[in-house]
Amino acid sequence: MIDFRSDTFTRPTPGMLQAMLQAQVGDDVFGEDPDVNKLEAMMAAFFGKAAALYCPSGTMSNQIAIKVHTQPGDEVICSHLAHVYIYEGGGIAFNAGAQVRALEGDRGMITAPAVAAAINPDDVHKARTSLVCLENTSNRGGGCCYNWEEIVSIREVCQQHRLPLHLDGARLFNALVATGQDPKDFGQAFDSISVCLNKGMGCPMGSVLLGSENFIKAARRIRKKLGGGLRQAGYMAATGIYAMENHIQRLTEDHLHAKQIAQTLLEKPFIGHMLPVETNILIFEVKGDWTPQFFADFLKKEDILVMPISPTQVRMVTHLDITPDMVEKTCQIISEMQ
Amino acid sequence: MIDFRSDTFTRPTPGMLQAMLQAQVGDDVFGEDPDVNKLEAMMAAFFGKAAALYCPSGTMSNQIAIKVHTQPGDEVICSHLAHVYIYEGGGIAFNAGAQVRALEGDRGMITAPAVAAAINPDDVHKARTSLVCLENTSNRGGGCCYNWEEIVSIREVCQQHRLPLHLDGARLFNALVATGQDPKDFGQAFDSISVCLNKGMGCPMGSVLLGSENFIKAARRIRKKLGGGLRQAGYMAATGIYAMENHIQRLTEDHLHAKQIAQTLLEKPFIGHMLPVETNILIFEVKGDWTPQFFADFLKKEDILVMPISPTQVRMVTHLDITPDMVEKTCQIISEMQ
Amino acid sequence: MIDFRSDTFTRPTPGMLQAMLQAQVGDDVFGEDPDVNKLEAMMAAFFGKAAALYCPSGTMSNQIAIKVHTQPGDEVICSHLAHVYIYEGGGIAFNAGAQVRALEGDRGMITAPAVAAAINPDDVHKARTSLVCLENTSNRGGGCCYNWEEIVSIREVCQQHRLPLHLDGARLFNALVATGQDPKDFGQAFDSISVCLNKGMGCPMGSVLLGSENFIKAARRIRKKLGGGLRQAGYMAATGIYAMENHIQRLTEDHLHAKQIAQTLLEKPFIGHMLPVETNILIFEVKGDWTPQFFADFLKKEDILVMPISPTQVRMVTHLDITPDMVEKTCQIISEMQ
Amino acid sequence: MIDFRSDTFTRPTPGMLQAMLQAQVGDDVFGEDPDVNKLEAMMAAFFGKAAALYCPSGTMSNQIAIKVHTQPGDEVICSHLAHVYIYEGGGIAFNAGAQVRALEGDRGMITAPAVAAAINPDDVHKARTSLVCLENTSNRGGGCCYNWEEIVSIREVCQQHRLPLHLDGARLFNALVATGQDPKDFGQAFDSISVCLNKGMGCPMGSVLLGSENFIKAARRIRKKLGGGLRQAGYMAATGIYAMENHIQRLTEDHLHAKQIAQTLLEKPFIGHMLPVETNILIFEVKGDWTPQFFADFLKKEDILVMPISPTQVRMVTHLDITPDMVEKTCQIISEMQ
Repeated sequence: MIDFRSDTFTRPTPGMLQAMLQAQVGDDVFGEDPDVNKLEAMMAAFFGKAAALYCPSGTMSNQIAIKVHTQPGDEVICSHLAHVYIYEGGGIAFNAGAQVRALEGDRGMITAPAVAAAINPDDVHKARTSLVCLENTSNRGGGCCYNWEEIVSIREVCQQHRLPLHLDGARLFNALVATGQDPKDFGQAFDSISVCLNKGMGCPMGSVLLGSENFIKAARRIRKKLGGGLRQAGYMAATGIYAMENHIQRLTEDHLHAKQIAQTLLEKPFIGHMLPVETNILIFEVKGDWTPQFFADFLKKEDILVMPISPTQVRMVTHLDITPDMVEKTCQIISEMQ
Repeated sequence: MIDFRSDTFTRPTPGMLQAMLQAQVGDDVFGEDPDVNKLEAMMAAFFGKAAALYCPSGTMSNQIAIKVHTQPGDEVICSHLAHVYIYEGGGIAFNAGAQVRALEGDRGMITAPAVAAAINPDDVHKARTSLVCLENTSNRGGGCCYNWEEIVSIREVCQQHRLPLHLDGARLFNALVATGQDPKDFGQAFDSISVCLNKGMGCPMGSVLLGSENFIKAARRIRKKLGGGLRQAGYMAATGIYAMENHIQRLTEDHLHAKQIAQTLLEKPFIGHMLPVETNILIFEVKGDWTPQFFADFLKKEDILVMPISPTQVRMVTHLDITPDMVEKTCQIISEMQ
Repeated sequence: MIDFRSDTFTRPTPGMLQAMLQAQVGDDVFGEDPDVNKLEAMMAAFFGKAAALYCPSGTMSNQIAIKVHTQPGDEVICSHLAHVYIYEGGGIAFNAGAQVRALEGDRGMITAPAVAAAINPDDVHKARTSLVCLENTSNRGGGCCYNWEEIVSIREVCQQHRLPLHLDGARLFNALVATGQDPKDFGQAFDSISVCLNKGMGCPMGSVLLGSENFIKAARRIRKKLGGGLRQAGYMAATGIYAMENHIQRLTEDHLHAKQIAQTLLEKPFIGHMLPVETNILIFEVKGDWTPQFFADFLKKEDILVMPISPTQVRMVTHLDITPDMVEKTCQIISEMQ
Repeated sequence: MIDFRSDTFTRPTPGMLQAMLQAQVGDDVFGEDPDVNKLEAMMAAFFGKAAALYCPSGTMSNQIAIKVHTQPGDEVICSHLAHVYIYEGGGIAFNAGAQVRALEGDRGMITAPAVAAAINPDDVHKARTSLVCLENTSNRGGGCCYNWEEIVSIREVCQQHRLPLHLDGARLFNALVATGQDPKDFGQAFDSISVCLNKGMGCPMGSVLLGSENFIKAARRIRKKLGGGLRQAGYMAATGIYAMENHIQRLTEDHLHAKQIAQTLLEKPFIGHMLPVETNILIFEVKGDWTPQFFADFLKKEDILVMPISPTQVRMVTHLDITPDMVEKTCQIISEMQ
């Protein structure tokens, strides 16, 4: 099977499995797991943040961050396509009791003026605005990357209003590789960052939340309440260490693969509008005689899996388990479709 | 002072004060206040619902209804201009732990197709859609009234998806008088209705929540948790009884007054777009050399109060305390402005 | 009917009704109700606190205070008999998401050493202790009054651990009158105080929450979320002003009545253990051939209402509507029971 | 190091590591991880429940169960020593908004009459009782096992009041081995069971929640909201399968070890009251010239770790990583202490 449904489907490489086996492990609830401690330190240093916290999933690290930054009844500003708003099971309301002000914008990216206009005045009728949340790359935006100047501008609006700024960096490594931006710039611009080890990084599970010492201390308390405190988490953390050392630069390959497939797709008359391919995600319309489901079913017969995500759109994601041969085969089959 | 800022500013008439004084009163927490019981029965009968609950405010009756209909982490569909979403302090997230899916639409009114499209599939990533909430008249929509057919269509969508439908009827009496619709039609179309006694009805405070026996039993429990269980609430309930008997039909007068003022305003070159005046609310742009604040300040010097509600808009509301003379005086002054 | 079930059943005196009628009223949500503003200022001055907030009920003012002092997942220390824990519908968990550490103790009063021992260490496994809550007089403790030295000691424990201290003063006026303590001592010892206007004070409804400027600002936001923001609340607030001016000292009469009835009861062989009568509440066992329900039913035939509160206990409460004649009649009837 | 601090400190055996490496894995969020599916089916069959859900931790599976069984503002009955109440960070209030009625009892075990007496009547003042929660073995009770008849009696009380009954079975396998009770009896008596794979079972992490199809469907939604949905969870699930096949019966060895150490300890004059040793936990007082901390420090110099858990008590736990030699060495050293 050639599985383009998501980059969450990757299986560890032999090297990663080896790293996993060699984990020292200890009880992380007691802070005694050396691999977890090493991964947290490594990740904090990479982004230039003071502290880090290993979490079972990206959803949990996002939810913890939002909870720490807000009070019940507060309002969180984010894109109407944000993962934290539409794909985390209503978690912002469930875990933090906070309300979402969802802004429209280009491909899930919001702008500084829109943020500024959405901040509520100090009035008991209005929820207190207490957090701005960006997603980079933007999943529903086809893996697009924020322009750095926009981030800086949003940061300024936040500082003027003393609002913390959180980054859902589930695919932040893709953005780093695609734009060449220094990870420490992100560490400086955002009060907290959630990065995922599962997706492009290829780990079986796990996420890391980054922030100040105080923020991470508070986050650790919330993680315990949610049941996210693991024991011998080192086996999983060791895969994160391995990914940090071996899987970042190779993301360029995934991006190249995505562009190759895009080129082939765009030659077909039944492929409509495609979101610009900036990283490892393709989102495109299927039209004419083809529907997304028909398109997916056709490819499935060839052992290729893709994901219809709306009545008109299909998503394909490249990742660690997609080899150049698979890309070639896929392009071949697509080019023969009619 | 001629106060057009809101219909929440009314003072009881002598008749209403007299009714208040003659309340029997008892401890309503023990169900022993006769005026509260009478008002609840009267209101339930008026709308053809099985049961009713007296609440201190319209915000509380809305919040209770939303809480009873939803579970934490669920999603509520309403207009992006809905009072429950933008003017109740983030209460939906605070009290119910529920998330809002805010739909755009004409003047705060949403449509059946938009509701149908916003209902989430059964997928753990998505919040469970569990309530649709309409507001009639729509406050931020300039007091506009839903077309009855639209309500029926939304009702059908809800029934297909087994979703309860709640009505924020803060100004439902205005809609009833303006459209001539039978109140029992509303009782039948909506699973729960919150009506306000304060606004057009002229009571000092209070709201009534309507629903089935089971719904109201659950609502009574939530009211207690919120601290909305009053003791000798009969003094306030008695004003509600008086309003039901004396203040409904007279709302036509408020609507007439609103239209009179609208006519005068629309003759002025510095008045821009005005939302259609269907009931007792006027929302209009102030443009050219005038700004909303300048307009409000000018009238204030004439002892007339209006409310700027955005950088370009002013709101005026007619009500019980606005007499024909006041309307005439106001029109006179406006027509002399330049 | 002579109603000893609760001091929540009182009806306003003619003087209070007169005060009610003369209220100026305005929209308190806009801060424009003069009687509300006056009552808040009067109450703050009386207890020497910086600010005050009028609330519809004592439950709401307690719940708001607890919410403002705590974060979700925190722990509140109080008596296992505390009204906030056992009679507010699980409100601490519902409104604040906080957990209760319920301490046993003499008649609903807790001690400084017990509080000190119950404070959790800084450990992610444990809920963060963030509030201590006392009730004075203690309702389920038979209206008993805290010894002032105990309050001072608890205050010291709180200060050592930087914990706020809240007073549920639903019947604080009874305690003030019974002990002669200066109300400003309470204002100084407690970070926040909730006092009830309904019970001994005889108002139809209402409560006032006291605290610092910042605390009350935060409380006002929570009040709005709960739907506790009223409009022309002045009618009810005016009764509070009247009560402050006319009903405090007369509480000694209620206390005297309670002692009179206690004396008569204790002469009867079917009356068992009675909690010491310090203010206006009597809680006593009914034994032998009599049960609490039988006792209550017997008196009901004589138009006297009392409340069985457990399989072995009855509660009687004296208040504004209990006259000397009624006490005499009640004593007469009791003394004839056998 | 010989680590008696907790059975959460175990490291996988070579056999378990081998099982881990051979996991097939898939994306469990999409239900495609074969080892997770196999473990869930295996565990459900073992206890005779309809469905199961793999969770990252025992805290999460407990918290999910409590959330599914309750509504915000409800009350949960459990022991005042229950792990869910005192060691899960206030999670019941945080995640479920529910209140705890903590009952005293013998070593963290509660009785049917105490449960019956603690159920609230249907009264708006009282939180609605909606769940009873037992812990077996009881951690703070020194690993004691509920008498089966008591469980049956509590079950009957729950059925009479239509209350669900949840079992925190973090160490249920220890109880099964110690008492010989059929696991299916537990499956029948409890509506939901949380079992831990980490403790005696020796897995690096993980827990399984058991219940009806509908219960697990609801639990899966909550797990997603908390961020407990993992991806290639199969590596960890595979250790659970291995433990089910290889580590249950060997718990008898841990119990034997605990008894051996107990015997040695009880010969020492500085060891005071010890809770009966029924499974793998020893809780005992250290007295005279020795304090718990002094005792722990002394053993630490001999590379033996124990845990002081109160100013007078020490806890020791036997587990997979404690060999007969270690027990012998420990007994030797203890017997030489004076």
